Amino acid sequence: MADGALALPLVLSLGDPAGVGPELIAESWARRREERLPPFLAVGGVRVLAEAARTRGLDLPMRAVSQASEAVALFDDALPVLGAEDGAFRPGAPDEQGARLALASLEKAAALAVEGRVAGIVTAPIAKSELAKVGFAHPGQTEFVAAACGMAAEDAVMMLAGPSLRTVPLTVHCALAEVPGRLSRALIERRCAIVARALAQDFGLAAPRLAICGLNPHAGEDGRMGREEIETIAPAIAALRASGIDATGPHPADSLFSPRARETYDVAIAMYHDQALVPLKALDFDRGVNVTLGLPVVRTSPDHGTAFAIAGKGLADVGATIAAIRMAGEMAARRARR
Amino acid sequence: MADGALALPLVLSLGDPAGVGPELIAESWARRREERLPPFLAVGGVRVLAEAARTRGLDLPMRAVSQASEAVALFDDALPVLGAEDGAFRPGAPDEQGARLALASLEKAAALAVEGRVAGIVTAPIAKSELAKVGFAHPGQTEFVAAACGMAAEDAVMMLAGPSLRTVPLTVHCALAEVPGRLSRALIERRCAIVARALAQDFGLAAPRLAICGLNPHAGEDGRMGREEIETIAPAIAALRASGIDATGPHPADSLFSPRARETYDVAIAMYHDQALVPLKALDFDRGVNVTLGLPVVRTSPDHGTAFAIAGKGLADVGATIAAIRMAGEMAARRARR
Repeated sequence: MADGALALPLVLSLGDPAGVGPELIAESWARRREERLPPFLAVGGVRVLAEAARTRGLDLPMRAVSQASEAVALFDDALPVLGAEDGAFRPGAPDEQGARLALASLEKAAALAVEGRVAGIVTAPIAKSELAKVGFAHPGQTEFVAAACGMAAEDAVMMLAGPSLRTVPLTVHCALAEVPGRLSRALIERRCAIVARALAQDFGLAAPRLAICGLNPHAGEDGRMGREEIETIAPAIAALRASGIDATGPHPADSLFSPRARETYDVAIAMYHDQALVPLKALDFDRGVNVTLGLPVVRTSPDHGTAFAIAGKGLADVGATIAAIRMAGEMAARRARR
Repeated sequence: MADGALALPLVLSLGDPAGVGPELIAESWARRREERLPPFLAVGGVRVLAEAARTRGLDLPMRAVSQASEAVALFDDALPVLGAEDGAFRPGAPDEQGARLALASLEKAAALAVEGRVAGIVTAPIAKSELAKVGFAHPGQTEFVAAACGMAAEDAVMMLAGPSLRTVPLTVHCALAEVPGRLSRALIERRCAIVARALAQDFGLAAPRLAICGLNPHAGEDGRMGREEIETIAPAIAALRASGIDATGPHPADSLFSPRARETYDVAIAMYHDQALVPLKALDFDRGVNVTLGLPVVRTSPDHGTAFAIAGKGLADVGATIAAIRMAGEMAARRARR
């Protein structure tokens, strides 16, 4: 077994069957030995998985399981699959039937995680606009998993992690014009405290170093270009430090992602979506993992979308999926040792 | 001579004598042969240059010239210096006398460029707050050089260029909250037209490809997160295309700086300071050049500040200065061939 530390497998949701999710699950299983991946099972989509595998020239033995725990012993010989939900394989052509399959797979995978039947969940990409058509009311999978855990979405914190960088955007899916109004001392303090705790618990960093970006160019240059640093961000940092968290800043964002600066912190806290996502994708494209901090369950996902345009063409890069599986396994192993 | 194409030398302004400018001028001259640099002269600061050179273990022969043109023949044997302005060498300790020297050097260098006595100007870093104390009223050297050319500052467009990326921020030194209000169709169209013309004239790109960022996350996702893409940016792109410019977008900024995306354009047009500067410094720190497009004269500068904290310690990286000198030389050679 690749990772002897895990008594339970990870669970992978299928993602939209018209996207790259199924083929990347197949490819990840095919590389389980060379990549030393922890055991995992998929939920539903036997036919979709088989056909997606074939588009990448892969032979994919599968074994039905009725309990997630059976997957650990089987994993080396076949991809364990739980559940009979299935659908047609129509890469690049999302439809309602596919959205229903994606949702059913996600719901069952999340339930397994919440019930403690798996070590963690790795979600393959869905298209929110497709899922919305079949009644999915959440902004994304992060919020869905938070709700499944009975938690407020605000306390589920998205972190992007690649080989070069970990970064957390404090605001995410809102217009840039709304960002200054959404930032508050309370938001910064609460989310940074969750990040600090999660990096200690799940990433083995006893005293994680949080480098906090300014909002404005040059972090406002002493108030000459915006006052959010003075009125909101610096007081939040002071409060975090007073509570024992190694938070520094506000740092000018433009130099915080240079190679030398990146050595000085464990996570960069960004004020808005692109301040975090631009450097992450510039440096670690195809290797970025989206991990949800602050949940009672371990949850990761590859940091890319369904990529409908290249699904079924053998072009999708498996790097981010493998990184997401490996990270979930490491987080689960760390929790198991506590 | 390293670059036979130039009949005239470049001119380098000294920068703040308490910063890293003088030592990097000395270091660049010392590397003139291995780096195949075009001939240049410095303006003023003989004593400062000599002492700054010593802090890097360099012996720096200098020769006074009374005409810029004399520098070409002398350059291989000594650093040509024009003008008697000088000051004390106090690295890390900026003062008024130093600011006066920096300003005198900049003014004379700009005048040489405007009069056509040099092939272009490379400005070493100044500290705006120090220069303001001796009457410098411009937001930065870019605006100063534009004014020296008799041009409106709005038509001098800052581009950052490194080995991995060229990028132009359409708004620069303002609070993030002000960015949406500053963007307009007219601003985008005017500045992009200047960029397209300059890339053709000065960079030898006959039909430059401009990739234009959205303002909001995911470029607004069809208006769900902000409407600037629909109301302002897309119409500007349509007008640019109608005028024959290869402009595309609005592209989601987060994926536009990935390695694969960077192959598809010659310059990324960003909506605000950090959208351009974050990826540039993440990818090309210590190698970035700040070049002013749209001027009648060639002007570049290394993309870093005075770095008072490390001045005189032999730590400052000369890469960006050498890149700025080389780029100015190439731009000037292209203009000379027209």
